[in-house]
Amino acid sequence: MLKVNEYFDGNVKSIGFEHASDKSTVGVMNTGDYLFNTGAPERMTVIKGALTIQLANDDKWHTYEQGQSFHVAGDSSFKLQVTAPTAYLCEFLD
Amino acid sequence: MLKVNEYFDGNVKSIGFEHASDKSTVGVMNTGDYLFNTGAPERMTVIKGALTIQLANDDKWHTYEQGQSFHVAGDSSFKLQVTAPTAYLCEFLD
Repeated sequence: MLKVNEYFDGNVKSIGFEHASDKSTVGVMNTGDYLFNTGAPERMTVIKGALTIQLANDDKWHTYEQGQSFHVAGDSSFKLQVTAPTAYLCEFLD
Repeated sequence: MLKVNEYFDGNVKSIGFEHASDKSTVGVMNTGDYLFNTGAPERMTVIKGALTIQLANDDKWHTYEQGQSFHVAGDSSFKLQVTAPTAYLCEFLD
């Protein structure tokens, strides 16, 4: 079954699926500021919109637009600033 | 709010959002055969996986892979054959 996840009072929602043994989610983030913790390492790809992010060990913010990806280490965290509703793909790399 | 849609007994789920006045959904289809009707014209883009589709007025089937798009006319329909869970972006073009 396809599992729907909700975070931050429903301002972030995602659908989990498995494709050829890759675990992934597709989701949408509403405008807002968020902090996510990782278990497995992740590759995040912007599908539509933009994500401005700061990795746990980085003092700089970086903005990723449609089609661009960034990696997040496992057992880590990242902050997000989202200025318009944005769709993303999150692929778990373990 | 982000609206979650379910079709075909939960084998297709999507999340609706609006980005810069573009209405879109991101979703996942489990393995299966589906028929969808359109209201507005749609651009469908495969995010991860593949979709094999037949448009209402076409006797051929076409397969679209990750990153590829196809258009569906408004007030029409299309059939899908999905052989592995696949994520997609649907943009409404009205």
